[in-house]
Amino acid sequence: MSERYTIISADAHAGLHCEEYRPYLDAKYHRQFDEYLAERHANRDQQLQMNYDYIMGWEKDNEEGLKGAYDPAVRDKELDSDGVAADVLFADADAVTGMASPPFGAGLFAGAIADPEFAFAGAHAHNRFLAEMCSHSPHRRCCIALVPITHDIARAVGEIEWVASQPGISGIMIPTMWRDHLPYNDAAYDPVWAVCAEAGLPVHTHSGEAPMEEYGDNTGVYLAEVVWWTARPAWHLLFGGAFERFPGLKFVVTEAAAYWAPDLMWKWDQYMGGGHTTKKMAALLKGKISKLPSDYFGENLFIGASTMSREEIRRRHVLGCDVVMWGTDYPHPEGTWPHTQERLRSDFGGIPVEDARLLLGETAARCYGFDLDALRPIAERIGPTPADLGQDPSLRTDPGEVRAARWWKDEYQLRPPG
Amino acid sequence: MSERYTIISADAHAGLHCEEYRPYLDAKYHRQFDEYLAERHANRDQQLQMNYDYIMGWEKDNEEGLKGAYDPAVRDKELDSDGVAADVLFADADAVTGMASPPFGAGLFAGAIADPEFAFAGAHAHNRFLAEMCSHSPHRRCCIALVPITHDIARAVGEIEWVASQPGISGIMIPTMWRDHLPYNDAAYDPVWAVCAEAGLPVHTHSGEAPMEEYGDNTGVYLAEVVWWTARPAWHLLFGGAFERFPGLKFVVTEAAAYWAPDLMWKWDQYMGGGHTTKKMAALLKGKISKLPSDYFGENLFIGASTMSREEIRRRHVLGCDVVMWGTDYPHPEGTWPHTQERLRSDFGGIPVEDARLLLGETAARCYGFDLDALRPIAERIGPTPADLGQDPSLRTDPGEVRAARWWKDEYQLRPPG
Repeated sequence: MSERYTIISADAHAGLHCEEYRPYLDAKYHRQFDEYLAERHANRDQQLQMNYDYIMGWEKDNEEGLKGAYDPAVRDKELDSDGVAADVLFADADAVTGMASPPFGAGLFAGAIADPEFAFAGAHAHNRFLAEMCSHSPHRRCCIALVPITHDIARAVGEIEWVASQPGISGIMIPTMWRDHLPYNDAAYDPVWAVCAEAGLPVHTHSGEAPMEEYGDNTGVYLAEVVWWTARPAWHLLFGGAFERFPGLKFVVTEAAAYWAPDLMWKWDQYMGGGHTTKKMAALLKGKISKLPSDYFGENLFIGASTMSREEIRRRHVLGCDVVMWGTDYPHPEGTWPHTQERLRSDFGGIPVEDARLLLGETAARCYGFDLDALRPIAERIGPTPADLGQDPSLRTDPGEVRAARWWKDEYQLRPPG
Repeated sequence: MSERYTIISADAHAGLHCEEYRPYLDAKYHRQFDEYLAERHANRDQQLQMNYDYIMGWEKDNEEGLKGAYDPAVRDKELDSDGVAADVLFADADAVTGMASPPFGAGLFAGAIADPEFAFAGAHAHNRFLAEMCSHSPHRRCCIALVPITHDIARAVGEIEWVASQPGISGIMIPTMWRDHLPYNDAAYDPVWAVCAEAGLPVHTHSGEAPMEEYGDNTGVYLAEVVWWTARPAWHLLFGGAFERFPGLKFVVTEAAAYWAPDLMWKWDQYMGGGHTTKKMAALLKGKISKLPSDYFGENLFIGASTMSREEIRRRHVLGCDVVMWGTDYPHPEGTWPHTQERLRSDFGGIPVEDARLLLGETAARCYGFDLDALRPIAERIGPTPADLGQDPSLRTDPGEVRAARWWKDEYQLRPPG
């Protein structure tokens, strides 16, 4: 087996410039679409006013490569030069001024759409574009469809059945926030989880949405909270018992970092596994889940950690190399593109090759069902070698270190709740 | 200076059995109070049905000591036998079936009260009881008044002025959740912060409240979130600039553990200190705060970590021994009482005495202004020695380890935002 890495980016974006969604959108929504476009342009103007040099610099320096958001040939070329064999495609390719947002904001901000008609119309327009986009080099793409499940569960099931019939679509993204709809721990969503588990479509939230209306102009509060709002649905599914009722269901939290997961695993395991402080809660917790919460990670729960911090790479064993998936966030400016090879070298140089293979591709392949045989020739051509990343091939993962990483299981002598 | 510890518990509870609040409550609310009492009893009956053996066992085994919730002489005796010189008193002394809740739930669940009249009436009844309770052995008590600031800011300022005039009252607790009122990052709360900073009253949230209406019967979700909801106001004050406008203001997050703080310090410092990924946000963050977020901890932000886990004690340098304050949670069953001395021995035995002195009392004394000279004779009589805790007196805090604990400052070469 070749030593070149088959790198899969578990966080990337695709989308048309917002005007270009028009032919994908039912004509009956075109009048409202014009209003939406006017809003988008006004928003861009406002952002340019605050941050002109940065925005124009980014767009000019990366003019050609940014076209990979919608042009499959450009995308393949950019992936090649970054050493990336395949990627997972979320909506909203323009993270600077939001000009690649699907109609009515049906991408990363779908939860904020008031009228279900617009939420579904915008989502379906993006999904139609996506089905086309992913028909080019399909083995290099895992396309994540938009489904506003909060707004109408029955209609959502219909949309999921449609996207499941599209060959390039391999997962769905749901609104991060349920707002005044039903929370995700509610069993009313079971028809959604059932169809996703049956079709093998992992369900995602992706960072972006948060209760902005509470933040005023205090952007620091947004940054302090956005990760939590993105991750929140994970424990609503877990403690609502969704993974018990649908053992094949996968839920992925994307671009909301990963650092928060180990402490939550610790505390959740302690609550459910018989910790001292929760005797008064024991009767209330009984019968909801059968395993320790941390044992759902890597089976039902995954983390698309995007461009991981070095600290998260250091914490890889407590996070689980079988849980966390690295990503470029292409073509967003906070990602590694177009300097992915340098970042891989500086961030992964010091860890064993077997850990890096999991984080950089194998866990994503398992989560999403990528065909590694089909990707192999591409990886042979463009993938970096361990030597390219400056790795010491004699470094081995220490199984004792892996076991000790989730220290709380021994310290509290926890047992599955049964 | 004596080697006995002056132990201050930064988390404890006091309160009357709910019926007994009647004489402290304005007569015009008595009719509604009867309805409230009926609800409390119905709630207790329901809990007894689910968890009879545990509840009756706890109440019978601790019958005498539980009276310390409202009887100062019993309380002093219980503190003595636990080796605790002084404590900080929050409402809701009965954490098992909630039968010590102030009128209308004005304690730990004040945010959920719809009518401001009842929120203030219930709070004032508890505050009147508290002023009496804290007039006995006043140097051993720091009483935390209830002020539902979300419900009426001007009226809240009036209540704070009244509690500030009561000698035993040394802090206020505000609703954890603002619900449909103004969020705490809003400058509309400035009159509250101003009067608290001026009067030297630390402001608290204490765990309890969370959006229960979203959880159904999935208690695991409540446990997974309650810490976050309790801590949330801290960063709303910080990033809303409250500590810039009121440098003397202190905010304490109580009984919501402490483990979450270091990762937030890291990420917040990175956002505000010039990290790579936030260039696009730089213009939006400018001018809000002048120091790195972690530098507000120990000055403006404190954590009443209650019965800390051993892991949190191991993480004491990244948390800050000048930030975190241990507590018994007396008389709650998830606390250390009546076995505090054993728990101190098993949890603090392995750390240097100077760290333990900070965590177990000195940081609380600085935060709350306890008179350590007045507590000294009590500590001489009842406080444990380092030998009682099994500590090795030759262990010293390593300043290099303390500096390295907040590793991100060097790794990202962060600078204060100015």
